[in-house]
Amino acid sequence: MFSIPKPYLIFVGEGLEALDVKTGQGLVEWRPEWCSGQYRLTESAYDLGLVDMIPSAAKAAGLATMVIGGATFGGRLTQAWRAAVVEAIEAGLNVASGMHDRLNADPGLAKLAKERGVSLFDVRGLPENYAPNVGNGRRRAGKRLLTVGTDCAVGKKFTALCIERDMRKMGLAATFRATGQTGVLISGGGIAIDAVVADFLAGVVETLSPDAEPDHWDIIEGQGALHHPAYGAVSLGLLHGSQPDAFVVCHEAGRTALIGYPEVTTPTIEECVMLNVTNARRMNSNVHCIGVSLNCAALTPQERELALAELEESTGLPVVDPLFGTDRLIEAMVSARPC
Amino acid sequence: MFSIPKPYLIFVGEGLEALDVKTGQGLVEWRPEWCSGQYRLTESAYDLGLVDMIPSAAKAAGLATMVIGGATFGGRLTQAWRAAVVEAIEAGLNVASGMHDRLNADPGLAKLAKERGVSLFDVRGLPENYAPNVGNGRRRAGKRLLTVGTDCAVGKKFTALCIERDMRKMGLAATFRATGQTGVLISGGGIAIDAVVADFLAGVVETLSPDAEPDHWDIIEGQGALHHPAYGAVSLGLLHGSQPDAFVVCHEAGRTALIGYPEVTTPTIEECVMLNVTNARRMNSNVHCIGVSLNCAALTPQERELALAELEESTGLPVVDPLFGTDRLIEAMVSARPC
Repeated sequence: MFSIPKPYLIFVGEGLEALDVKTGQGLVEWRPEWCSGQYRLTESAYDLGLVDMIPSAAKAAGLATMVIGGATFGGRLTQAWRAAVVEAIEAGLNVASGMHDRLNADPGLAKLAKERGVSLFDVRGLPENYAPNVGNGRRRAGKRLLTVGTDCAVGKKFTALCIERDMRKMGLAATFRATGQTGVLISGGGIAIDAVVADFLAGVVETLSPDAEPDHWDIIEGQGALHHPAYGAVSLGLLHGSQPDAFVVCHEAGRTALIGYPEVTTPTIEECVMLNVTNARRMNSNVHCIGVSLNCAALTPQERELALAELEESTGLPVVDPLFGTDRLIEAMVSARPC
Repeated sequence: MFSIPKPYLIFVGEGLEALDVKTGQGLVEWRPEWCSGQYRLTESAYDLGLVDMIPSAAKAAGLATMVIGGATFGGRLTQAWRAAVVEAIEAGLNVASGMHDRLNADPGLAKLAKERGVSLFDVRGLPENYAPNVGNGRRRAGKRLLTVGTDCAVGKKFTALCIERDMRKMGLAATFRATGQTGVLISGGGIAIDAVVADFLAGVVETLSPDAEPDHWDIIEGQGALHHPAYGAVSLGLLHGSQPDAFVVCHEAGRTALIGYPEVTTPTIEECVMLNVTNARRMNSNVHCIGVSLNCAALTPQERELALAELEESTGLPVVDPLFGTDRLIEAMVSARPC
């Protein structure tokens, strides 16, 4: 769908936390061979472990595209970031962005890019010339797994990418389906659905995961969370359009409140399973939860083992830390009786 | 949010049937005090019972905005209608439209409006210069009722308008909050949310129903249905952003399958209540269903009485035909204990 010239200069901005550079981190982790430098606006900005470069040096070193690797609140292009984009264009780099504020919608940036002969890639929203339809609810051939979550940023994309990788290692047919800008940048396909007009959301997801062979699995990247005050609508459109046979609940160990919403507690795994099954079963009455993917990044090894064992005990479901493989989820997924 | 100057000149066009002037009829029915004239292009055009005026006479009589009250096939602006819009702008009237063809997207109309110092209101989608935010989930003061449904086109807008009217008759403080284009034109405010990007849906709905006095009720127009294969996402964003204290389930007597989805059965009232409560209670733990609004248009009077009684018996909820008043719903709504 998109064909973005490589290698990449990852634009970090001034964010201090890993979460501020989610897209950059995903690219470094899943496509390290494409990431040749980072552009940080301040010394204290998060370090992705790449060589620091300013755009002109990146161009001189043969890099092709500056990818916006950071995130601002609401996906807005701030003044400082816009200046960095101008700097990259002036240096002769293409720029790729998953922000809500589209680079191509900024007349000044579009004009400058044209003058310098570089391209601006907006990977959020629908590709050009894609005419969306409303959902039809028709059951499609093949199997589908969706990664759902107790919050944003708990590992839904990561878990889906791990499952695809691990299934392929086992010789199983699996395709990762990206639904967010980072996933689109990593996989080179899919659609960042959160920028789709709500009326067309389920319909777009239906086309994202078309009919397939009976034993092929689409591993669909989840977004948001059904109970999330801001993003519940995106999650429901995704759940309906995916009509999943199976889902994994992704959770971060120790997270007790939603990120950015300190007064909103995270649901229990059981609540999350119930809410997803309740909403999904009208599209696929056989939907079931096959397990939990627990993000243990904040835990010591001992704490991790304890957390996994406790959650497995309390939920009765397979619980894995995806960093150490997702085979137990895959076994639960493929061994479930066909219905 | 839209705020369209009144009073209105209703543009009828040349349509012969009531159905050709649906929006105009809705306006005359629900906001007669705003409708001071009609502009018909032919003598045989449908008569809304208003004084016939051409735009210049309307302006002289103190009217403020010409509202496109008719509908063309596909929501297109025909040549004859465009000429009428030009005439209105030239006369110094604002123009409001819910058509797919946006007035502001027509460079000639936009330029002319600017020259004459009038505004063009395209009530589908977000108003210009409205920068949406994501939802914050913060509880707002005042009370909120949402009309939900077992399908599209079951009477959610009609029921909400009836409840607002009947509450005001009782001396209660109520404000209808429009979420669709016809509702926006009828109420002169609100946002047609089906054209909002999914990420911002709940946030837009939050701003649509701001803080209010403790005993004031916002009566929010519902859209779609939570279990709908295409529009569930819209309904969930609306449910979350509304954080309703109360909801009414709207249903059409005798409808057994979703419109346009002959293989998808309508849910029972109980299923619909359960799904809405399950999804809404994280935003407002005191949410409850106060009753059912049954659209009995297809029934004889005898069938109607029977249908109302049967549904009341089976659900244990007040069930009304909104054509005959919504007082019983309002009593259930305001008598519920404050929490």
